[in-house]
Amino acid sequence: MNYKMMSRLIALILTMEAGFMLPALLLCVYDRDQAAVYAFFYAICITLLAAAVLLLASRGAKPGFYAREGLVCVGLGWISISLAGSLPFWFSGVFSSYIDALFEIVSGFTTTGASVLSAVEGLPRGILYWRSFSHWVGGMGVLVFLLAVVPVSGRNDGFTMHLLRAESPGPNVGKLVPRMRRTAGILYLIYILLTILNVVFLLAGRMPVFDAVCTAFGTAGTGGFGVRNDSIAGYSIYIQNVCTVFMLLFGVNFSCYYLLLMRQVRSVLRDEELRLYLGIAAGSVLLITLNLRGMYPTMGETVRHAAFQVSSIMTTTGFATTDFDQWPVFSKAILLTLMVIGASAGSTGGGLKCGRVLLLLKVMGRNVRQLLHPRKIQVIRNNGQAVDEKLLANTNAYLSAYVMIILASFILISLDGFSLTTNFSAVLACFNNIGPGLELVGPTSNYGAFSAFSKLVLIVDMLAGRLEIFPILVLFSAGTWKGR
Amino acid sequence: MNYKMMSRLIALILTMEAGFMLPALLLCVYDRDQAAVYAFFYAICITLLAAAVLLLASRGAKPGFYAREGLVCVGLGWISISLAGSLPFWFSGVFSSYIDALFEIVSGFTTTGASVLSAVEGLPRGILYWRSFSHWVGGMGVLVFLLAVVPVSGRNDGFTMHLLRAESPGPNVGKLVPRMRRTAGILYLIYILLTILNVVFLLAGRMPVFDAVCTAFGTAGTGGFGVRNDSIAGYSIYIQNVCTVFMLLFGVNFSCYYLLLMRQVRSVLRDEELRLYLGIAAGSVLLITLNLRGMYPTMGETVRHAAFQVSSIMTTTGFATTDFDQWPVFSKAILLTLMVIGASAGSTGGGLKCGRVLLLLKVMGRNVRQLLHPRKIQVIRNNGQAVDEKLLANTNAYLSAYVMIILASFILISLDGFSLTTNFSAVLACFNNIGPGLELVGPTSNYGAFSAFSKLVLIVDMLAGRLEIFPILVLFSAGTWKGR
Repeated sequence: MNYKMMSRLIALILTMEAGFMLPALLLCVYDRDQAAVYAFFYAICITLLAAAVLLLASRGAKPGFYAREGLVCVGLGWISISLAGSLPFWFSGVFSSYIDALFEIVSGFTTTGASVLSAVEGLPRGILYWRSFSHWVGGMGVLVFLLAVVPVSGRNDGFTMHLLRAESPGPNVGKLVPRMRRTAGILYLIYILLTILNVVFLLAGRMPVFDAVCTAFGTAGTGGFGVRNDSIAGYSIYIQNVCTVFMLLFGVNFSCYYLLLMRQVRSVLRDEELRLYLGIAAGSVLLITLNLRGMYPTMGETVRHAAFQVSSIMTTTGFATTDFDQWPVFSKAILLTLMVIGASAGSTGGGLKCGRVLLLLKVMGRNVRQLLHPRKIQVIRNNGQAVDEKLLANTNAYLSAYVMIILASFILISLDGFSLTTNFSAVLACFNNIGPGLELVGPTSNYGAFSAFSKLVLIVDMLAGRLEIFPILVLFSAGTWKGR
Repeated sequence: MNYKMMSRLIALILTMEAGFMLPALLLCVYDRDQAAVYAFFYAICITLLAAAVLLLASRGAKPGFYAREGLVCVGLGWISISLAGSLPFWFSGVFSSYIDALFEIVSGFTTTGASVLSAVEGLPRGILYWRSFSHWVGGMGVLVFLLAVVPVSGRNDGFTMHLLRAESPGPNVGKLVPRMRRTAGILYLIYILLTILNVVFLLAGRMPVFDAVCTAFGTAGTGGFGVRNDSIAGYSIYIQNVCTVFMLLFGVNFSCYYLLLMRQVRSVLRDEELRLYLGIAAGSVLLITLNLRGMYPTMGETVRHAAFQVSSIMTTTGFATTDFDQWPVFSKAILLTLMVIGASAGSTGGGLKCGRVLLLLKVMGRNVRQLLHPRKIQVIRNNGQAVDEKLLANTNAYLSAYVMIILASFILISLDGFSLTTNFSAVLACFNNIGPGLELVGPTSNYGAFSAFSKLVLIVDMLAGRLEIFPILVLFSAGTWKGR
């Protein structure tokens, strides 16, 4: 394993993170919030110190960076930014224990949005900014950002590819342009533009600037941390609808936007994943609206709440305008299922991803055909193109790992003794990077009641969910650490 | 599609079923229970009539029986025996609607053991016998039985193979002996011997003969219908322990017993699935015992209840000696997980099956290795032998279908408005052929409260679970009914 190259990369990530903390520090200075200023100041110092140590350790690094290093680097990189990112939370004294601070920042970077705080109003604005910003940078990927702006590897494109592949959500990556660095840059550009557009729309609804920026961060990263205790419920109907639309937009595969930029409108309209994604969303809104009739004063309000919650849960954002834990059980069952399905591949959302669900459905269909006609060779097609068997094998392995991790986490956090629905929905909400679950972890509640051990389990789940399992799984695999 | 051959086969199955109803009829005559006598008499007549019509329709059947016919035949065959088998229940007047009678018999044949009856004591013995016997014949397979005793196909071994493959539980079948008919015969012989042994052990504990036979039927088929309202709780400790051991024995892959008969003790001891199966069972008993401490008066009683319930749930039998819905949530989470894992492949138990879990774990491990070393070709081995990639693909497709069906059923039965835990555990308990779930469908309760629609969904789940999904899935596939 090329430890020196890995050290250098993690040193770069930490330096970048220290830079990201600067705006939060300045905000605290502007607000004259002395405790918060010190919290960020110390956090930046420690982070830079750690980066310096790692950089020193990486002297004389040689090239040679393979898939293994890429995977491990992504896993360790995310653990590093989480540890460093938790420092301002911890130093600020807002959190009652270190594990709570860590839970909150992992929830931020992984765009989960599960909180241990019962109230956020009145907290230092620097802290709220840092919470929301972690969603934004975590949504598209910390390493993707690094690769887009820093010439880390010179002409070593394999390096970039291994990292991008390990960090990007969805079954396959890199279909946009052959040059990986350009891909990362284009993706981030689209991301930034969409975020700015979101802020503009929110400001047009007379949302305060700070709220608008933080809400846009939470929407863009499909995270869900808000700056108000009642999430989005207290804002105007216009703002709620803007959020509904933008959440849905950030759950679309970003390559669709790239194709739109290239004026390939037709291939976007024909994209099977996009159709499945929009179809499931529309169908869910319809079914929930029918199921909720009579619960809200008007039909319009019912549709609005249904659309907002479906958009929020399916894209794994986790904002709320109403306490959906009070909804009838049929609607809750649909929401739980949307948690599993998730957003599109190549978006900032989590879950299994529509693209993967599509492939799994096709694998099922092929198996039926194969059983009926055992001697025919059956090829699976996606958007008209044959799908590589390796990608299918990977998707299948993903589903296995997905089920196993959910079951294991579910058993482990059951030790705390809360209800089965609480535990199961907590695991689904964390592992799929959604945020709120049901009952004790419902939208009006938080994760504070869990034991430190359960929080640790959920932290691993959030990381595994965001990084699509395998970069975390390899860290626990003996084969990773053995010599070649 | 060779409809005539299929008609003939289903006619044979129905004739056989009419024969199976005879002992129940005689029992009713012996008990002088006039209503029950008529119920069975009419049921037998109608079943034979249907068989005669089908036989007439099959005149001039030509050979030519392929995988497609095999799959469809198994699906339609099971639907036919369910429709015919529900008749005595319906005619007896014990059930309040036809759908209840159908639910009960499907639950019987699929060895689920989920009941719509709130009390079974005082029911005609013929009805109780038919309930329990349906477990026994459904456990090993109705078509397997037919193939073992009737020379349906002459020398057409492909015919037998396609049917056996479609009906037998577990990822792969037919590794015992090349001749399929002999396989079916040997399997049934082992099954009958073990059942007799079970009866003898129960009689030794002074259980009444009728109770012993019915309990043995329920144990052998890993079904779970009992003849007492409190399942096995009212019997002596000795009888409870006999049930624990025999449930576990019937959850073992029957090829292990065949190998034992061939004196290949060593390869049985080294069997990876057997080790996993026993390891999970032992680990679960240990964890639940620790979790339950203080709940029962003595340590011995705690272990006994833990072992009985683990054995019952993991083998998907569904007997109970205590109300495990009252257990702490950690123990309940373990039981829910055991519902998913299930018994061994090639046993009478349901669930995903340990053999399949083992393969899925290996697929996961291979994916990690493949990500670390993308250029190496990785072969998966089971008991030292390379596993066919087709089997792996099938196993993966199985998991996809498994997850999709659970989610879809969960949403559909949520329309009734019961709790999420009730609905989720009901789907798991029916689809994995276990029987009791949690809360409203817990071990002291029953499925009577569900609507007719939900019962129909659960009936499909039970059949899909018992037949390992695909023989039921093909019935819904357009490709099945199109010409070649």
